[in-house]
Amino acid sequence: MEGDFMDIFTAIKERRSVRSYKSTPVEKEKLDRIVEAARLAPSACNFQEWRFVLVTDTLKRQALMEAANNQSFVAEAPVVIACCAETDEHRMRCGELCYPIDISIAIDHMTLAAVALGLGTCWIGSFYPEKVRKILNIPESIKVVELLTLGYPADSPQSKNRKPLKEIVFYEEWK
Amino acid sequence: MEGDFMDIFTAIKERRSVRSYKSTPVEKEKLDRIVEAARLAPSACNFQEWRFVLVTDTLKRQALMEAANNQSFVAEAPVVIACCAETDEHRMRCGELCYPIDISIAIDHMTLAAVALGLGTCWIGSFYPEKVRKILNIPESIKVVELLTLGYPADSPQSKNRKPLKEIVFYEEWK
Repeated sequence: MEGDFMDIFTAIKERRSVRSYKSTPVEKEKLDRIVEAARLAPSACNFQEWRFVLVTDTLKRQALMEAANNQSFVAEAPVVIACCAETDEHRMRCGELCYPIDISIAIDHMTLAAVALGLGTCWIGSFYPEKVRKILNIPESIKVVELLTLGYPADSPQSKNRKPLKEIVFYEEWK
Repeated sequence: MEGDFMDIFTAIKERRSVRSYKSTPVEKEKLDRIVEAARLAPSACNFQEWRFVLVTDTLKRQALMEAANNQSFVAEAPVVIACCAETDEHRMRCGELCYPIDISIAIDHMTLAAVALGLGTCWIGSFYPEKVRKILNIPESIKVVELLTLGYPADSPQSKNRKPLKEIVFYEEWK
């Protein structure tokens, strides 16, 4: 199957935010591999607080688009994944909440797996959680952390704009 | 170079928390590839708030071990990376802080790149940020989000213990 041989460095380089999608559905086998990549993610104390709602229904995706600040590609993508946390909001000793970190690792795995399967994704933080909860019947106690669109890209890659390493990496101490 | 051909699914499967390291130093070329994998990570609004302090100095690693709840493998690992955020703590519309999510994506890239290069890592959230800041001369305004150990594993892989997919994935709505 396509995707077994994309190396990790290529996947990292080629991953990009895809904001235009073909209407082609995503094959069930590919979806399964993508959520399996999420399932294998590490989490603080192995609590595995991540929960994913995979949405392909046209009316629901339309409603999610409206909940996501009317970003049209949210309805265009054949799959939207509501990335949630079932959590008591515990923190690590360093002071950070566990769930945003743990959900992000699992989502990152999905975005990289998607690239290897010829698919594109986009992280979406611009949405109203209460609206998403209502559309997808998600309990009040569950955090909706991110939405992720998924599908075959209809746009073209652009080069990544990133800071040079010397601005983000320091050796032995902060400089 | 080793690592060009580890596919993404294998890297995700083989990544694990390594808590025992050989004293073998990590080659500069490998370190460069690992931080480059972090640099290519996406971030909210492309703000790129991640900052990484790479520590190989023996005395500093010993001090970091003490700051990390005396977890001995922190001093044992030939490299410890303090994963930081230079941030005004802005939030996405969904309510989540951007920096924990963005730093986590970059760290996840490093952990997967490391696997492909024959290296192991461990995410560490059990540490006192004020102590780490003092050891590495990190300004008060900078968040120390995670520590990451890096080196050649001295232990053996164990099987992953994860919830079955049906407990974490729902279709079309929460069930």
